[in-house]
Amino acid sequence: MKIPVVRNILEANERIANEHRQLFRQNNLLVLNLMGSPGTGKTSLLEHTIHYLKGKLRIGVIEGDVQSSVDAERISQAGAATVQINTGGACHLEGNMIKAALDSINVEETDLLFIENVGNLVCPAEFDLGEDFKVMILSVAEGDDKPEKYPLMFHEASVLLLNKVDLLPYVNFDIGKIRKVVQSMNPKIKILEISCRTGEGLDNWFQWVLDHMKK
Amino acid sequence: MKIPVVRNILEANERIANEHRQLFRQNNLLVLNLMGSPGTGKTSLLEHTIHYLKGKLRIGVIEGDVQSSVDAERISQAGAATVQINTGGACHLEGNMIKAALDSINVEETDLLFIENVGNLVCPAEFDLGEDFKVMILSVAEGDDKPEKYPLMFHEASVLLLNKVDLLPYVNFDIGKIRKVVQSMNPKIKILEISCRTGEGLDNWFQWVLDHMKK
Repeated sequence: MKIPVVRNILEANERIANEHRQLFRQNNLLVLNLMGSPGTGKTSLLEHTIHYLKGKLRIGVIEGDVQSSVDAERISQAGAATVQINTGGACHLEGNMIKAALDSINVEETDLLFIENVGNLVCPAEFDLGEDFKVMILSVAEGDDKPEKYPLMFHEASVLLLNKVDLLPYVNFDIGKIRKVVQSMNPKIKILEISCRTGEGLDNWFQWVLDHMKK
Repeated sequence: MKIPVVRNILEANERIANEHRQLFRQNNLLVLNLMGSPGTGKTSLLEHTIHYLKGKLRIGVIEGDVQSSVDAERISQAGAATVQINTGGACHLEGNMIKAALDSINVEETDLLFIENVGNLVCPAEFDLGEDFKVMILSVAEGDDKPEKYPLMFHEASVLLLNKVDLLPYVNFDIGKIRKVVQSMNPKIKILEISCRTGEGLDNWFQWVLDHMKK
């Protein structure tokens, strides 16, 4: 009984995603769907990215959370136009939620739109939001066994940011092993090592974003 | 369209959960539903718990993962009777999955059954599995803002284990603040500080389990 229901939701979502993809393309807007577990550093990454890029680009952020506007307040303070989506229990963002959020975003006057998905390593990867790239962030404190256990997101992402590398001396996490496993699952993925706490490696991420801008 | 579907799933789940609750009660079996984000330390906690309690109690484990049997292999090596559930994409366990797993567990000859849920801070909290207690584990590396953002699980849990306290010197996490916030949401919750890496605080957790045994 459950499978047809999920299929209907995914098909309905795909239609909306395609409309949004067209809208984003017409406006030369780069859209990045940021995904990862709770507490992996998604909002911290956005704060750093906005601070660095806000003089160069017009940035918008759609913040997805089950509840609260804690993250949207942080992002707004960092200096980006921010819209909060509260999913009210749902563990991922879907196209219809993005549709509602886009009413509050001037896509013509935005160069770069981040969608911060709900903190969850599973379902967000299933829902196309019309983005250009899925960007995944994994904290080294989560352990290096995650690709085998949550393969879809590693498979779908164009970029994997390994965050909190300042904690490497204190946790069991083998960077060489995870690079090998992830690249065997997804040969084209770009893997960058960063620390939002110390700032290490963030330059490479900022450069990746700048290299993919459309206007 | 989506809401009635979710309601049907939750109602169907509740019926199965009630059957299981009765089965567990008849057999004086203590059942703990272990929930938390990916990489928060659920499997490590179980390994330690099995090592400590296996001489005293007959322990079974139902391992829930989207894919792979990495965790079930670790648990089986630790010395507990283990059944793996692969959800095939679903981000949480439901009653019908537990029903299938129970075919492989001798409940009459088991004293303590752990159900390790899928690593996810959102949906597992919505699905009653017939357990006696929901036990939540949060790594201090995830940050102390999680209760506001993912309130349901903090509200539903009887025990909150704050894991990886050995990382406290290297992360921004205020134990006093999170205790206050969580207790205001859920006054009866028991909060224990542990480190599966150093073993700190695990004695308190083992004692909590022993205090709640039924046979």
